[in-house]
Amino acid sequence: MPRPRIVIVGAGFGGLSAAHGLAGADADVTVIDRRNYHLFQPLLYQVATAGLSPAQIASPIRGILRHATNVHVIMGKVTGVDPVARCVQLEDRSVPYDTLVLATGARHAYFGHDDWEEVAPGLKKIDDATAIRRRILLAFEMAEQSDDPEERRRLMTFVVIGGGPTGVEMAGAIAELAHVALRRDFRVINPREARIVLVEAGPRVLAAFPPTLSAAALRSLERLHVEVRLGRPVSHCDAAGVTIGEEHLPAGTIVWAAGVASSPAAQWLGVDRDRVGRVMVGPDLAVPGHPEIFAIGDTAHAAGKDGQPLPGLAPVAKQQGAHVARVLRARLAGRPPPPPFRYRDYGTMATIGRRSAVADFGWLKLDGTLAWLMWGLIHVSFLIGFRNRLIVMLDWIWSYVTFQSGARLITGPGQH
Amino acid sequence: MPRPRIVIVGAGFGGLSAAHGLAGADADVTVIDRRNYHLFQPLLYQVATAGLSPAQIASPIRGILRHATNVHVIMGKVTGVDPVARCVQLEDRSVPYDTLVLATGARHAYFGHDDWEEVAPGLKKIDDATAIRRRILLAFEMAEQSDDPEERRRLMTFVVIGGGPTGVEMAGAIAELAHVALRRDFRVINPREARIVLVEAGPRVLAAFPPTLSAAALRSLERLHVEVRLGRPVSHCDAAGVTIGEEHLPAGTIVWAAGVASSPAAQWLGVDRDRVGRVMVGPDLAVPGHPEIFAIGDTAHAAGKDGQPLPGLAPVAKQQGAHVARVLRARLAGRPPPPPFRYRDYGTMATIGRRSAVADFGWLKLDGTLAWLMWGLIHVSFLIGFRNRLIVMLDWIWSYVTFQSGARLITGPGQH
Repeated sequence: MPRPRIVIVGAGFGGLSAAHGLAGADADVTVIDRRNYHLFQPLLYQVATAGLSPAQIASPIRGILRHATNVHVIMGKVTGVDPVARCVQLEDRSVPYDTLVLATGARHAYFGHDDWEEVAPGLKKIDDATAIRRRILLAFEMAEQSDDPEERRRLMTFVVIGGGPTGVEMAGAIAELAHVALRRDFRVINPREARIVLVEAGPRVLAAFPPTLSAAALRSLERLHVEVRLGRPVSHCDAAGVTIGEEHLPAGTIVWAAGVASSPAAQWLGVDRDRVGRVMVGPDLAVPGHPEIFAIGDTAHAAGKDGQPLPGLAPVAKQQGAHVARVLRARLAGRPPPPPFRYRDYGTMATIGRRSAVADFGWLKLDGTLAWLMWGLIHVSFLIGFRNRLIVMLDWIWSYVTFQSGARLITGPGQH
Repeated sequence: MPRPRIVIVGAGFGGLSAAHGLAGADADVTVIDRRNYHLFQPLLYQVATAGLSPAQIASPIRGILRHATNVHVIMGKVTGVDPVARCVQLEDRSVPYDTLVLATGARHAYFGHDDWEEVAPGLKKIDDATAIRRRILLAFEMAEQSDDPEERRRLMTFVVIGGGPTGVEMAGAIAELAHVALRRDFRVINPREARIVLVEAGPRVLAAFPPTLSAAALRSLERLHVEVRLGRPVSHCDAAGVTIGEEHLPAGTIVWAAGVASSPAAQWLGVDRDRVGRVMVGPDLAVPGHPEIFAIGDTAHAAGKDGQPLPGLAPVAKQQGAHVARVLRARLAGRPPPPPFRYRDYGTMATIGRRSAVADFGWLKLDGTLAWLMWGLIHVSFLIGFRNRLIVMLDWIWSYVTFQSGARLITGPGQH
């Protein structure tokens, strides 16, 4: 009898966790990803703000799964799924499966304003991060050369749209880059005069955290001279700047951290999806009517304890990947399935800047230096690869001690 | 009286050394570069072969010159020089000078075959290196997915054209990447079967070194299973492969390390230039007839002891930059000029692979492990920035111990 074929699409936190859980199982596992590396997305904003290099937060998928000899890795772009013929379509071939795990993640959503993407790039991929880094650093270079004070002010205004963890972390990191790391690098402009504006349509930043921690984050942002605009949505973005409610704010750099939409996995399958495009899944994370198809992580709408969908966080995706691996191992062994998936919330954190973070462990809420140290330790310990852990930690210690940031390179298109 | 204006074009080894030598001088110094960073080019091949990250060998120019308060940095592309009006033209402005130092470096030369550049990229810029890295790593990914054994063989054939230090280092590093770092990463192909071919038109590799060291380098390359083809030039390159003399070699990746030409500085000035476009300079490194214009490094043809032009090496550029700074400081102080420039040759080195390098100090010629250790120490000690030194050293030690390489990312155009 041929060995069952399990195909996992996506090598993010969910897909990798499923692949790890299936290492050594009596099945042929294929992991398909568009890229050759796994990306540690929680630290991507540090690449965008010149703190870290791409290779420090990315690790080749083949290397991670080297010792899982039943796991085969394919670098390729999935264009669709045929749930009847049971195969995944790539651009130039198709891969048959007996069981399919969709872990395709999320991308930015501009809520009907897709033309804003050009001027207000989001932060999901390495190339997004190096593009944002290029914009931020070039804005200072152009301001240094401008004779027009108004244009200089515009170039030195940075707007971050969205007050969730990514937006708060970006705004804090841009403020530290401008006010600390670059402060003596220019002769004409004074980078300390840079304006960093964080725009949030809701009433508070970090809405997923308890109100006390939102307030602590707001105070930290204000200490970093980030201007926080709450309660008014952005009504327009273009190359000249941002319109917030009625106010027009001339800005040279706009970063989008306001919304995500799921990948098109639900469309591929033609199954039920929620408002942001996530596949509705049952308590075992399988797609209703398709016990052979699972969706996990940002691709899935799985109900939590309170009936609300689980948030798009790395720990959710990881635990779901491990759960699917357990379900499949039970099936392979002919054992009864494990109990339904339950997310264990060990806490959430967000960092704002030097010695400033918030952490919510449910029973314990922290902000300030201690939360920041824990944030650093936890993020480093989850990084894949001992080398990356060590080097990221050294980079952080170095930046902390010297007030410098290490990867201030303007690379890419147009920089030849 | 207004302070004299000294403009330095290019922040490579030569330009930076001149700027350092003029720090604190009674003159306004402006450094103009297309990029915002200084690149440590001798290690660029390690970025192209996934050993190091770009930020590890590049350092922001503003950061390097932060404490030289009389030095102003402009990021911009020079399009010409007006030696009569004494100003440097950028794309959108012009910068006047009293003294001009041209340190614009070199670029690849395809000897009349500019159409080869598309299929056989060279290695001068960071974006070149990440593009070559992408090609090399993608070749293995495509081979893993190909059903055609002939195409697989083609994809796994890597040709390096040019047997100078860059070509030897590239060929050795690709061989180690394929035969060591990637050896267990694939399930279909065996990366150890990759063919690495080094093509040199002349009779030996490393022609600038003594013949005994060329022979040692050849033995090291052969130990790494690099096929070395000597004495026949490449007659054709295209997407299918390389033609060497009469032999057609199907190849998926071609790297050009065969020739350099100077930047267009001589054309800007309309002055005498040599065969590869370098500005002819006098013993003080000034352009004859233009005591206010200097050319240094790869931009300049300066005669050495034996009447031959000095080679295009980092130490030559550095010493010339320092010399020009001394000449200009003497002029500023009204002192007589220093004696004519003399290059002090402290030796040259090239590395081939793990525990293998050659070093020629004139009085001492070395190859093997000791030369390799010296190569590593010397290159790390010349890297700018303590952080980069430390992290490159850790990366090397890590790679040495684990046989792994750290920056195996496929990024850039088309990887979205």
